[in-house]
Amino acid sequence: MRPALSALRQFLTQNKLDGFILPRGDRYLGEYVAPHDEMLAWLTGFTGSAGFAIVTQKSAHLFTDGRYQTQGQQELQKSGFELRHSVKDKFDEDLTAAFPNGGILAFDPWLHSIDWHRQTVKKFNTTKWQIEAIAQNPIENLWQNRPIPQKNGAQIHPLKFAGETSADKCARLGSELAQQNIEAEFINDPTLVAWLLNIRGRDVPHIPVVHARAMLHASGRAELFIDPRKLNIPLDPHIDVRDPDDMAQSISSLQGKTIRLPANNTPYAILQMAQDANIKTDTAPSGIMLARAIKNPIEQNGMRNAHRRDAIALAKAFKEFPSLVANELQIAQQVASHRSHHEHYVEESFPAIVGWRGNSAIVHYRPDDKNSAKISGSGILLIDSGGQYLDGTTDVTRTITIGTPTAWQKEIYTRVLKGHLAISRAQFPIGTTGSQLDTLARQYLWEVGLDYDHGTGHGVGSFLSVHEGPQSISNRANSTALVPGMVLSNEPGCYIENEFGVRIENLVMVTPSAQTGFLCFETLTFVAYDENLIEKSLLTEAELEQIKIYHQRVQQIIQ
Amino acid sequence: MRPALSALRQFLTQNKLDGFILPRGDRYLGEYVAPHDEMLAWLTGFTGSAGFAIVTQKSAHLFTDGRYQTQGQQELQKSGFELRHSVKDKFDEDLTAAFPNGGILAFDPWLHSIDWHRQTVKKFNTTKWQIEAIAQNPIENLWQNRPIPQKNGAQIHPLKFAGETSADKCARLGSELAQQNIEAEFINDPTLVAWLLNIRGRDVPHIPVVHARAMLHASGRAELFIDPRKLNIPLDPHIDVRDPDDMAQSISSLQGKTIRLPANNTPYAILQMAQDANIKTDTAPSGIMLARAIKNPIEQNGMRNAHRRDAIALAKAFKEFPSLVANELQIAQQVASHRSHHEHYVEESFPAIVGWRGNSAIVHYRPDDKNSAKISGSGILLIDSGGQYLDGTTDVTRTITIGTPTAWQKEIYTRVLKGHLAISRAQFPIGTTGSQLDTLARQYLWEVGLDYDHGTGHGVGSFLSVHEGPQSISNRANSTALVPGMVLSNEPGCYIENEFGVRIENLVMVTPSAQTGFLCFETLTFVAYDENLIEKSLLTEAELEQIKIYHQRVQQIIQ
Repeated sequence: MRPALSALRQFLTQNKLDGFILPRGDRYLGEYVAPHDEMLAWLTGFTGSAGFAIVTQKSAHLFTDGRYQTQGQQELQKSGFELRHSVKDKFDEDLTAAFPNGGILAFDPWLHSIDWHRQTVKKFNTTKWQIEAIAQNPIENLWQNRPIPQKNGAQIHPLKFAGETSADKCARLGSELAQQNIEAEFINDPTLVAWLLNIRGRDVPHIPVVHARAMLHASGRAELFIDPRKLNIPLDPHIDVRDPDDMAQSISSLQGKTIRLPANNTPYAILQMAQDANIKTDTAPSGIMLARAIKNPIEQNGMRNAHRRDAIALAKAFKEFPSLVANELQIAQQVASHRSHHEHYVEESFPAIVGWRGNSAIVHYRPDDKNSAKISGSGILLIDSGGQYLDGTTDVTRTITIGTPTAWQKEIYTRVLKGHLAISRAQFPIGTTGSQLDTLARQYLWEVGLDYDHGTGHGVGSFLSVHEGPQSISNRANSTALVPGMVLSNEPGCYIENEFGVRIENLVMVTPSAQTGFLCFETLTFVAYDENLIEKSLLTEAELEQIKIYHQRVQQIIQ
Repeated sequence: MRPALSALRQFLTQNKLDGFILPRGDRYLGEYVAPHDEMLAWLTGFTGSAGFAIVTQKSAHLFTDGRYQTQGQQELQKSGFELRHSVKDKFDEDLTAAFPNGGILAFDPWLHSIDWHRQTVKKFNTTKWQIEAIAQNPIENLWQNRPIPQKNGAQIHPLKFAGETSADKCARLGSELAQQNIEAEFINDPTLVAWLLNIRGRDVPHIPVVHARAMLHASGRAELFIDPRKLNIPLDPHIDVRDPDDMAQSISSLQGKTIRLPANNTPYAILQMAQDANIKTDTAPSGIMLARAIKNPIEQNGMRNAHRRDAIALAKAFKEFPSLVANELQIAQQVASHRSHHEHYVEESFPAIVGWRGNSAIVHYRPDDKNSAKISGSGILLIDSGGQYLDGTTDVTRTITIGTPTAWQKEIYTRVLKGHLAISRAQFPIGTTGSQLDTLARQYLWEVGLDYDHGTGHGVGSFLSVHEGPQSISNRANSTALVPGMVLSNEPGCYIENEFGVRIENLVMVTPSAQTGFLCFETLTFVAYDENLIEKSLLTEAELEQIKIYHQRVQQIIQ
């Protein structure tokens, strides 16, 4: 058993708590977490990107989804933790089965959203369990040799890349708040802070943001809560810089007014602050997310330019692969290295997925120092990678064959490609959501009884997170209509376990179509498809023409 | 000005009310309304199937949707009512603009659902208006010469058609309630009462139900609230017959327990009864709707059989059209007459839509005594009709050409047909919703900048309403997964205003596909498509084959 687990149990006993829940995540509730905040890994040994632990005196469970079941089994050996499936297993049922008389499950209110709190209270309604926010997360004291937090400074994101001044953004979004009788919106998500205030940073891997929070006022003024040591840049006069310790004070100054705390990405701790100060709250989603998703003309051009450089880098990298003696990780490094020679490049937009043969069938596979298959012989190689450039963010997946593919591999590749092409050329009425388009990408796989267990497309930021909302192309309902300027991925796939996987991904931008009342997509990514994997007899004339025109444009761009 | 309007205003003055809202509908909140309950038509003169009136001393507005704007303009002439668009215009804004200091808007709590009440309270939150339920609807006293209510009796729906005894249905749905700690569910919708208790009636046109309500207990017992004069049939022993006046008493007997009142189709008046008696309420949707939607094997066979007879009737009718000297209404009557010769036929499942030339472009057009175009010369004729048979309900639309169609008519017909065929042959994973399939039907129209402003498919009852939930194939989000046994329409269309409209509709039934984990549709309707309208160059080989096989089956069935 890990000493961390015993230490946590001792804390529970001393504090008369029956259990503690710890998610993988930090106080910014984001996707990427700095080493300093990897509390779940410290407690359990599990290093996957999603999950949570529940510890009681009787049990220690680590819940994670289908992607991480194998990895979880390995990492949890001798940890004292038992692996659970976060979709199939229910922690509230577990707790009730183990302790029918109930108990108190403690949680750190900074690590869970208002939504999480609501749903969990509801879940526990039919049990004798209760949840209780605790002021001090026990891990803070228990964790010896904790990594030091990043102390990188904030940087200005210049207008030539941002395309709109922060003052203008704050004024127009502030007036949206005013129309809803909301005095201020609290912004906990550093990527929203970064977009709204035109600042960037290096506090987490892959997402160029600085750890900071903000409050936007209906007047168009903004308060920025940031460690003063991180701020060595001059900010626009509409921004008031505050110490993070002043948040409660800023919130309590809104007496008699309403504060917006978006339930999905505001920590429960902030709601507590507002409630303690008797401030009225509104927990509807943030309007800032939608505003950010609609790229302005400068951002649109930046995205186009970044993708042209990305295309040139990838063309060079892909040319080398067939003759390269390398393992998966080396390929990932090679791709990053090619990107790094280009103007405005900063870092990878996520850890590259390079999967050889059976590994290509693992959707979230990622090679590392310990695990990295050597490319040799013939097979399928899947490469999903992207770059952060000052003027845009890229994300592209290509599946290629080394040696001669089988007929089955070609059929699957071609059916995935047909779906990808259907999204690329779709024309759809104004008001259409990404959910309405999703099936266009799946239909050719469904015909033969195949499918893929992920969305078809996610939103992408502009020198921000490679995953951003509110739009998506998904089989889950999403009520956000697609609007010109939104950028999404178009990435159908198909995975034959232990054999091979196919995914083909371009980024596309929503744009008005020639037909009044309709929209379509402009493709941003220009990297050739592998013609060896295309089974032409499955394609229509129109699809063959579509591929031909695309490959001509790739040639124009990379030469 | 209509005398009814002056009389209502007098009532408002006498009762110190500032306004009254009256919807088109009855106390059963259903789609079809008996003449006795056509209060909105009496008050305003408007006879459309959807809308509501708001009367104040200053204003009298009739709100209805896009379908009825033209008809509304005509019918409201000299009525004193002004026409409003129920989607584009907002009655709360109207009221606030006219009376900034607010007022009391009265409503009849029997004519509005719990959902309507909630949404309206929320709407009024930002105004100084309030809504107030009144005990007695003023129209009851004001309406002279009101039609006499239907006094038709209830009939048994025999097991050979229903396929499951009422006792079994009540036991399994009662135990679902028990699992949720719900003591009883109140059922206000006569079509749900009919399905659950295996009874039918003739109280409203087109839907074979009797006006009655019920309460299902977790024990599997049911109370039926029905006018005793309507009940001359023996009922199963698990059913307790009650006078409608005993509803409040039955509800108040649930002390200390929870009653389910589905918010979407329970009148607010029932919630008031429960609240007055201090009974706990749960307003989640009814599980009975989903159970009803999944047809059992006997109902499935009944649907197949009813559709075979329907196919024979329609084949005869369609053969006559080109040589028939007739107007639209006569065609509708002719179709109904052909159906009526067949076993188990009861009535039309809705008033037939027969549209000639420009009229075919009006989605909810319906010929009547006064308005009925004569078919002569060449043009497009759209016929949307259906039958109620004891063993099933049908609904079919065909668009045919009389004379030679234009290239434009053929292109549109063929694109609609391609969408219709795509739904017919779709194979999709278990768990797929109708919303995910909708775009398959629209994609070929979108390609050329066309679309249709209605859903692709609605659920269909089994000798019950031709429109039933919870499933649909729609561009609106619908989270209900398709399940084997559900019946839906498949009816894409396209409408060129003042010129012509095309709609092609079959009923289909969800069924397991040969591929494990996947579902597909079994087509129930067998009526030939008009080959004169098919532009073969727009079809793939696979689509041509699909049509050929379908036409072969039509021939087998009708000969």
